[in-house]
Amino acid sequence: MAYKDEQLHEEKVFKDPVHRYVHVKDRVIWDLISAPEFQRLRRIKQLGTTNLTFHGAEHSRFNHSLGVYEIVRRIISNFEGRPHWNSEERLLCLCAALLHDLGHGPFSHSFEKVFKLDHEYFTQQIILGDTTVNKILERVDKGFAQNVSDVIAKTYKDKLVVSLISSQIDADRMDYLQRDAYFTGVSYGHFDMERILRVMRPMEDQVVIKYTGMHAVEDYIMSRYQMYWQVYFHPVTRSAEVILSKILHRAKVLYEDTHYTFKLEPTHFLSFFNGNVDLKDYLKLDEGIVSYYFQLWQEEEDAILSDLCERFTNRRLFKYIEFNPNLQMNEWMELHRLFMQAGIDPDYYLVVDSSSDLPYDFYRPGEEEERLPIHLLMPNGELRELSRQSEIVESISGKKRTDHKLYFPNDLVEKMENSAMKERVEEILNGQGDVKNAN
Amino acid sequence: MAYKDEQLHEEKVFKDPVHRYVHVKDRVIWDLISAPEFQRLRRIKQLGTTNLTFHGAEHSRFNHSLGVYEIVRRIISNFEGRPHWNSEERLLCLCAALLHDLGHGPFSHSFEKVFKLDHEYFTQQIILGDTTVNKILERVDKGFAQNVSDVIAKTYKDKLVVSLISSQIDADRMDYLQRDAYFTGVSYGHFDMERILRVMRPMEDQVVIKYTGMHAVEDYIMSRYQMYWQVYFHPVTRSAEVILSKILHRAKVLYEDTHYTFKLEPTHFLSFFNGNVDLKDYLKLDEGIVSYYFQLWQEEEDAILSDLCERFTNRRLFKYIEFNPNLQMNEWMELHRLFMQAGIDPDYYLVVDSSSDLPYDFYRPGEEEERLPIHLLMPNGELRELSRQSEIVESISGKKRTDHKLYFPNDLVEKMENSAMKERVEEILNGQGDVKNAN
Amino acid sequence: MAYKDEQLHEEKVFKDPVHRYVHVKDRVIWDLISAPEFQRLRRIKQLGTTNLTFHGAEHSRFNHSLGVYEIVRRIISNFEGRPHWNSEERLLCLCAALLHDLGHGPFSHSFEKVFKLDHEYFTQQIILGDTTVNKILERVDKGFAQNVSDVIAKTYKDKLVVSLISSQIDADRMDYLQRDAYFTGVSYGHFDMERILRVMRPMEDQVVIKYTGMHAVEDYIMSRYQMYWQVYFHPVTRSAEVILSKILHRAKVLYEDTHYTFKLEPTHFLSFFNGNVDLKDYLKLDEGIVSYYFQLWQEEEDAILSDLCERFTNRRLFKYIEFNPNLQMNEWMELHRLFMQAGIDPDYYLVVDSSSDLPYDFYRPGEEEERLPIHLLMPNGELRELSRQSEIVESISGKKRTDHKLYFPNDLVEKMENSAMKERVEEILNGQGDVKNAN
Amino acid sequence: MAYKDEQLHEEKVFKDPVHRYVHVKDRVIWDLISAPEFQRLRRIKQLGTTNLTFHGAEHSRFNHSLGVYEIVRRIISNFEGRPHWNSEERLLCLCAALLHDLGHGPFSHSFEKVFKLDHEYFTQQIILGDTTVNKILERVDKGFAQNVSDVIAKTYKDKLVVSLISSQIDADRMDYLQRDAYFTGVSYGHFDMERILRVMRPMEDQVVIKYTGMHAVEDYIMSRYQMYWQVYFHPVTRSAEVILSKILHRAKVLYEDTHYTFKLEPTHFLSFFNGNVDLKDYLKLDEGIVSYYFQLWQEEEDAILSDLCERFTNRRLFKYIEFNPNLQMNEWMELHRLFMQAGIDPDYYLVVDSSSDLPYDFYRPGEEEERLPIHLLMPNGELRELSRQSEIVESISGKKRTDHKLYFPNDLVEKMENSAMKERVEEILNGQGDVKNAN
Repeated sequence: MAYKDEQLHEEKVFKDPVHRYVHVKDRVIWDLISAPEFQRLRRIKQLGTTNLTFHGAEHSRFNHSLGVYEIVRRIISNFEGRPHWNSEERLLCLCAALLHDLGHGPFSHSFEKVFKLDHEYFTQQIILGDTTVNKILERVDKGFAQNVSDVIAKTYKDKLVVSLISSQIDADRMDYLQRDAYFTGVSYGHFDMERILRVMRPMEDQVVIKYTGMHAVEDYIMSRYQMYWQVYFHPVTRSAEVILSKILHRAKVLYEDTHYTFKLEPTHFLSFFNGNVDLKDYLKLDEGIVSYYFQLWQEEEDAILSDLCERFTNRRLFKYIEFNPNLQMNEWMELHRLFMQAGIDPDYYLVVDSSSDLPYDFYRPGEEEERLPIHLLMPNGELRELSRQSEIVESISGKKRTDHKLYFPNDLVEKMENSAMKERVEEILNGQGDVKNAN
Repeated sequence: MAYKDEQLHEEKVFKDPVHRYVHVKDRVIWDLISAPEFQRLRRIKQLGTTNLTFHGAEHSRFNHSLGVYEIVRRIISNFEGRPHWNSEERLLCLCAALLHDLGHGPFSHSFEKVFKLDHEYFTQQIILGDTTVNKILERVDKGFAQNVSDVIAKTYKDKLVVSLISSQIDADRMDYLQRDAYFTGVSYGHFDMERILRVMRPMEDQVVIKYTGMHAVEDYIMSRYQMYWQVYFHPVTRSAEVILSKILHRAKVLYEDTHYTFKLEPTHFLSFFNGNVDLKDYLKLDEGIVSYYFQLWQEEEDAILSDLCERFTNRRLFKYIEFNPNLQMNEWMELHRLFMQAGIDPDYYLVVDSSSDLPYDFYRPGEEEERLPIHLLMPNGELRELSRQSEIVESISGKKRTDHKLYFPNDLVEKMENSAMKERVEEILNGQGDVKNAN
Repeated sequence: MAYKDEQLHEEKVFKDPVHRYVHVKDRVIWDLISAPEFQRLRRIKQLGTTNLTFHGAEHSRFNHSLGVYEIVRRIISNFEGRPHWNSEERLLCLCAALLHDLGHGPFSHSFEKVFKLDHEYFTQQIILGDTTVNKILERVDKGFAQNVSDVIAKTYKDKLVVSLISSQIDADRMDYLQRDAYFTGVSYGHFDMERILRVMRPMEDQVVIKYTGMHAVEDYIMSRYQMYWQVYFHPVTRSAEVILSKILHRAKVLYEDTHYTFKLEPTHFLSFFNGNVDLKDYLKLDEGIVSYYFQLWQEEEDAILSDLCERFTNRRLFKYIEFNPNLQMNEWMELHRLFMQAGIDPDYYLVVDSSSDLPYDFYRPGEEEERLPIHLLMPNGELRELSRQSEIVESISGKKRTDHKLYFPNDLVEKMENSAMKERVEEILNGQGDVKNAN
Repeated sequence: MAYKDEQLHEEKVFKDPVHRYVHVKDRVIWDLISAPEFQRLRRIKQLGTTNLTFHGAEHSRFNHSLGVYEIVRRIISNFEGRPHWNSEERLLCLCAALLHDLGHGPFSHSFEKVFKLDHEYFTQQIILGDTTVNKILERVDKGFAQNVSDVIAKTYKDKLVVSLISSQIDADRMDYLQRDAYFTGVSYGHFDMERILRVMRPMEDQVVIKYTGMHAVEDYIMSRYQMYWQVYFHPVTRSAEVILSKILHRAKVLYEDTHYTFKLEPTHFLSFFNGNVDLKDYLKLDEGIVSYYFQLWQEEEDAILSDLCERFTNRRLFKYIEFNPNLQMNEWMELHRLFMQAGIDPDYYLVVDSSSDLPYDFYRPGEEEERLPIHLLMPNGELRELSRQSEIVESISGKKRTDHKLYFPNDLVEKMENSAMKERVEEILNGQGDVKNAN
């Protein structure tokens, strides 16, 4: 029997708190799960620093990847026998679902920003490079690895397959909303996925939703909106992200400073600092190693690096206020100046962070990031863009919401020795509203 | 206001998936949670290697410690105003609940076994030694840290206080059963804790259960039984524990071998190998560091260390069969011999692991580990030991169940070159029943 | 001890699937629950005919009334000791919460419409009339029954008390959304009530929400929106309501027709037909009696009454199409005419039903039904109307949505003998879109 | 296409709170659900009087019947293609599952006891008699109705089919345990049905369980045990049952008393009193009609009938004590005598009720009610009776537990005028332990 058709002697099941069970019957899938590059995802948290806000959110990307696979498995088992569905694409869909996040590293968000990396690039590298995963995929079929890679990169020719993994209502989002809700324990993030799966229909170039399922989709979109603002953009999580980014930034600066000698040489970071990260370096970097460095760097001589690492390790985060630097340029400049005078380096200790999200978007051809809208399949067989049918979606459609916050170490402000200076800093900060404790 | 009476300006709440919210109003508790020794628990998994079996079980001891605190908080807020309850003990109970697991290190079970350590010893050390936690406790009251330590060590004079944390139905067990069930996703582990809390009554030297709550307690005991055999003693988890122990063991042997030179010097393990672990060393060791070593030791020259680390890191676990070496001494010795002949060191690759549990025990004075039984408060005011009232508990009471398994790397057996030898090994192994895949 | 202060020797608890437990400690509350007028609510379904759509929705108003009581109990136990809160009002709040729906009869919606009744009127009658409930309330205090009645009628002087039971985020709504979601099994209707309760603050004339709870309130409003359109206005439920109303209407017509003789005299309906319903008649009417008549009326001589009763009893409902008679006047008149020609009385068999809802409204003084908006308590102590702070609420605020449907018995249309007529009827009906099966 | 093979144009789904969705694709099933005899189950509560104890338990037998159907549907869809499974039996299994409780009347337990009826007899009558259900079944195949009837009566030749509906782990039990737990809100009744379904295997004459699912089955048996004692045999529910039985008994006595004239003639009960109930009478009797009589009989002249009806309607139940008449014959006889002297008829007001259950039984050939044990399918292909493999099941296996209670109206005792007599009655009653309030 061809490798791609091999079935496990007995179905394997993973007990999953979100989908109850994840079912694996294909040998290819089982082999991919067992590959070191996939097992590595156990050592990378799905939500990075969010567990500093929601202590339950300690789940890994391994967890989520299995979930996305399982959702796609259920969707396409419903597709069997329907028009537009090519069952030859089954294994491709499953592999792409399982591997779509394979390139994530520890604390991806901050690492990508500071070191100008892109996890999608590494996903491609792992799938196409000299890896166990690649060997498995190539054994399926010549060119199969490339196809998997293309699906994840959204360049694959069959757009229906792409839309299962990447669209405004794909398996990826459906898994993470539910999973992150489960592990954080928040009451948002619930929607009737079973119903959505039942009303999904394959069309030529996308998955569409039978109109009877519109309300379940509305609920999904509202869940997404709430999860973004309540969990993903939580200001305390962002405080931890700010500190993390500044640690990476500082370490790089020190590395480039020929006068500075690390007590603990940043061996694992060198290629990141030098901008020549190769796959082997990248795969070695999991959260264990990063936290190892942060723990030991608490004892570095550089006061900033040591302080920031101590803050991150022991969760002594920055406080924050609402602050829009575009509108409050004068206050921003004055604070900057006062911090410098007080010897608190504003590059590390006075940080604006902005988050923004578009809860749902209709199609705007030609715009920067084209987002494929959700289509309803109407009784008469026509497709109708969701926001034209749903009043509730229409009301939030295309509306981008942005939130700006200023982060700073309130403990250092309180310890400023020059009392006039301190008073002025506090006056500006308080003038912007409540100082919030990132705790 | 005295430090011990200080209340936070505004109550802090932690969103908790198990208890919905954890409430903190006392400044002392808030300060303890913020202490580095407590934050460290975020970096240690509650269930060690269980996540290799149940992928959701990635929650930390930080998580559980907050939960135990919250349960005790709820119990004693019900006790207010009842006879036998001394509200002066309130803060002591809360601190002991929060800190009861403070001394746990990474993969405690294996570390303790291999290095002859005891996490309870380290809990005492952290509470009484030169730590932030100790400073906070001493600020409460002279001798308060010692009291907290005594409660956790079960030597505190007020046995009612002790029984909240350590008994057959204490806050510790009630939290971990529910929490571990939640994160693994298994359907066991559920019982009506809200009802149990409502029927708990303080007595002179223990917490007892009003008889109307007997069935909720039965349910709790059955949950515990199922969790032990379905989750805690799961054979796949034990396979990972076996490998982990053998890694530690091998590293120690190599360290003691003057001819061997580590590529990566085991700096963080030295005091463990030398048997002179002090608190500072101990606190530095979290799972990040351990997994850092394991990852790098894959490249050590020693074939055994490198192989075991690779197995652990990439989850290539040992298989297992039911095997009781006491009853199967001949087979055991023959296997041993055959493995040695085949060049597979049986000290590392042929391992018996035994687990046993006593689901509930009545009181047996003078026995090795005295376990205080659960008492029901009957309508006439008398106390009645649970198993004398509950038929279902009676039926399992005092019955120890033990399970023996033999672990070995089936892949190495399959690769044995001497086919007669291989055949004989497989004959013995198969003769014991199914070979199970630890996957 | 005064009756109003009497406490039960031991707290009573009701196991409640929604709030886990309902707690009763006041003798007054216990006595009210035991009163026949309150026990009667066990025999009246909370959601009338909804169980014909969602088979789980068989829960009674007794169920819901206990739930509202429990929520108010939790809210005001949080209020204890806060400014603006007068603990003297405690028992009044609890009684009003428990009794707020006391005047509901079977299938209230249809009965009220057909017989021009008002359940609120009967609630007042029961509370103030010659009933067990009234005796209990008067024993509390002279005038107490009147106060309870006033709170429910929203005329009580202390508007804070009124707002607990009647506002856009009151205990009534919070209970029914969750309860109806639980029993129907839909995934809508969930929100974090525990959080909302914790951020509710008493103010001079209303309950307000601390701004930190805004997102939980958003979630509640979205839940409400979904429950209205997915459950309460479900077209199949409305089909059953249409038939029910027509049964009552037909029975009244027959009663007024001196030539018609009922096989089963409608004794229990006489006062309803005559428009002189007194309290005693009203209290006797529960769903058991109504369904008794409907079952027996299947054998009445009048073909319409018998047919409609058979449909209701055996759930042979009308089908429906989207149809707005204002916009489709010609079709409406033609259908009317064709039905008459075919001998299918359009007064009973061609029925337009319209439902509309306003998901949230800001304050519009002077408008017909003034709805008190939800106010957030901002960090600076100011109150801010919800839709001015929440983008998502703003987007749906004040937008009334209306839905018109035309109901008819498709089986009778299919049996029309004149095939031209039948064809024309089907043409018109189909021209409006899909014919939906109310099944 | 043959009627038995007809599929609905579009699958119908029922939203079910327990199984999420119930799926119907066969026209036969859809037609059966729509039959008046099946719709009638909406008007009969699954748990009779249990809602007087657990107010959420208002769900109907319609609800449960759909659930059993759905479980069987899922089981046999797993069986497709397995040895021993004859897919020709599919529709038979589904019909038997759906219809297995069709003969239940209102408050079956009491009606059956008082009037010597048997709901299984009526189930057969409905399936085989002149009913819509029969017509549908006969349309499937000549003799099909008889087969369905035989499966339900356990006399069908294919014992595998029978065991799906009637065994110690059948679809009936799996549904009611979960459903009754859901609606009452108790925390018992949960087990991992999804896992049990996955390990069920068809064998020649029974469904067996793959040994890997043993623990899920243990959990199921423990759930069952707890549900029996916590819910089904709850003493308050039994108090309501006692009163209900006594009402029926009294009405029959009065009917047989030629001197007594009912104000409300018991028309619907006549055939029950006369012992000549035919199917038509039986089908008319739903809970609405029974409660209609009970409400009106409150105004009957007979003091006992009127009092009992008032108690039932307004939930003024009897109190109870533990009491075993076999062991306490003297007290029993004295109480009897004292009640008679006080003019409280002991036949109606002094009632012993006994409940007993066997949580699990192994096979005992030749015994009165043979119960087929649960068999595990072991790795070597052998079958092994559950209690021989599971220690926890072994410990409760074959152990019958019985509970005796004495019910009486405490309010009448308290009103006894002869104070010596009253004192003696109370002395006896209290001597047996606490008097419990059935509230």
